[in-house]
Amino acid sequence: MFKRNIRIIGSGMALPAQETSAEDLDKKLGLPSGSSFKKTGVRRRFLSVNETAAQLAARACTAALADAGLQWGDIDCLVATSGTMDQALPYNAALIHAELKLTRQRTTTMDIGASCLSFLAGLDTMSYLVECGRYKNVMLVSSDLATFGVDWSRLSDCGIFGDGAAAVVIRRSLDTESSCILSSRSITLSAGVDHCQIPAGGSRFHPRRLKTPIEPLSIFQMEGKSAFKLIASEMEAFIDHLLEQAQLSLKQIVKVVPHQASQLAINHLSKRLGVHSERIIDIFKDYGNQVGASMPTALHLCRSGAHVQRGDAMLLVGSGAGLTMGGMVLVY
Amino acid sequence: MFKRNIRIIGSGMALPAQETSAEDLDKKLGLPSGSSFKKTGVRRRFLSVNETAAQLAARACTAALADAGLQWGDIDCLVATSGTMDQALPYNAALIHAELKLTRQRTTTMDIGASCLSFLAGLDTMSYLVECGRYKNVMLVSSDLATFGVDWSRLSDCGIFGDGAAAVVIRRSLDTESSCILSSRSITLSAGVDHCQIPAGGSRFHPRRLKTPIEPLSIFQMEGKSAFKLIASEMEAFIDHLLEQAQLSLKQIVKVVPHQASQLAINHLSKRLGVHSERIIDIFKDYGNQVGASMPTALHLCRSGAHVQRGDAMLLVGSGAGLTMGGMVLVY
Repeated sequence: MFKRNIRIIGSGMALPAQETSAEDLDKKLGLPSGSSFKKTGVRRRFLSVNETAAQLAARACTAALADAGLQWGDIDCLVATSGTMDQALPYNAALIHAELKLTRQRTTTMDIGASCLSFLAGLDTMSYLVECGRYKNVMLVSSDLATFGVDWSRLSDCGIFGDGAAAVVIRRSLDTESSCILSSRSITLSAGVDHCQIPAGGSRFHPRRLKTPIEPLSIFQMEGKSAFKLIASEMEAFIDHLLEQAQLSLKQIVKVVPHQASQLAINHLSKRLGVHSERIIDIFKDYGNQVGASMPTALHLCRSGAHVQRGDAMLLVGSGAGLTMGGMVLVY
Repeated sequence: MFKRNIRIIGSGMALPAQETSAEDLDKKLGLPSGSSFKKTGVRRRFLSVNETAAQLAARACTAALADAGLQWGDIDCLVATSGTMDQALPYNAALIHAELKLTRQRTTTMDIGASCLSFLAGLDTMSYLVECGRYKNVMLVSSDLATFGVDWSRLSDCGIFGDGAAAVVIRRSLDTESSCILSSRSITLSAGVDHCQIPAGGSRFHPRRLKTPIEPLSIFQMEGKSAFKLIASEMEAFIDHLLEQAQLSLKQIVKVVPHQASQLAINHLSKRLGVHSERIIDIFKDYGNQVGASMPTALHLCRSGAHVQRGDAMLLVGSGAGLTMGGMVLVY
């Protein structure tokens, strides 16, 4: 069974208080005005100073719940689909459940992770449990804080990340509703496993196992060109397969929601697919790469800005650390 | 739909090279001989010195694959169900995919996490995708290294953890097979969110955000009594509900596979349920608490030791950081 009668009925997002501009970064790095924007394509983004990932997630969930017109008692499963951890233990969804003060709600909670594509993996996976009636209303939430863990000497890293969170509520479509997931797929190209990583944070480079300072192991490291090359070599065939399974052509896709990896990646997708930029939800300029929170944030802004109507076909697609490619064709 | 026609067709486990005894710990801590075993109930366990979580996971997967009589090309989805991360990025399943050198296999990979109950959450969740035909053979693997991140001044922490990994392969049951999942459930009691935690490792206490040394934030912290009390207050009703949904009585359960949290927790479960210890798979004495790897290791030893026959009803049950309780009734 590939088709699942799933409907997105609510969404919300949250941002840290501190906004920063490309001009601010130029000043910080002592670069000529305009350099950062020209190099990164990001003119504005948000940085977490004191907020935790669970706090932002809780705010995004609260907004999505209100948008769906539901109460917490209606949500039987809360799935955290972040690309990074808030604490090593417990898992993100439990911390978010606590942050939301849901101590009286015996919600099922879990994390589903696949780095930047965690939201897609979570939506894809949980859609079967909603289709089968295991859960009625599932809240998916991604919240990532990555901006403080970047290499400030590399503009391509420190200039592109933004912090944030976004949440989506799904339920089974009614008989009168056409909303559904037509196809979805994810593959891991682990030849690129070290193209994009944060080595420390887990057991491999636990502070007690290290004889050297934890930095730079705790800092985001990327071999951008190698990652781009590996993904680009597979992307077209991957999308063809998704569309074929959905029995749709690219022309029938009203909106493409890509992971907001970089301006180059979004532009490349547009060019390779021959999809005009108006059909692509591109929020990179204003939010940067928000890791796992990018895709649900773009999806939320697409919905809330009325860039998509019920019955429209959409393509969600992207790649992330792993390297992993994922995509989904859905009828909104 | 609660019943899923799922069959466990293979399993395997892996341990680090270094074995240690309660006597070794007595010596290390300068305690009278016999003290550690008396206090913890662990007489032997395994400690990772150089092994990574991905390496142990890969060995467990290889063993489970052989046990299932399959090739990697038959496995369409690899799910890491560990309680802890190996690196902050990428996610565990991608690192394991790389460790297994599956660069030519376009496997779907993801992590499903719920601390010590990650395996249960993964088995429960993925069973729907196997039932629906999305994936044919799913490999679930848990691998946790926790022993170096403990407080050596607390015997109740440093004396109980053991490192290890275990993997299980599931597929849909044939029409002639009775194997199935009858019921499953998980609830989060986030009033106990801070009863059991490792604060650092993620974004909240990222080294760049800290003004103090990362230790003790990178060390496992537990309020054992509070956690035990909260879980104990809910456990009986929780299991009653699971059995009711499965339409079975406790007498019909041939084997109980608990999370191996502590000797006290296993003994308490046996006593409260009135289930004789012979019906409980208790591997705590020989392996300690292996975090997420405990339950699949116990399940593997139950299978490989022929303690369960096809058609037998089993109860998997436990609790972990979150606090989260989970359980499943299945026909093996």
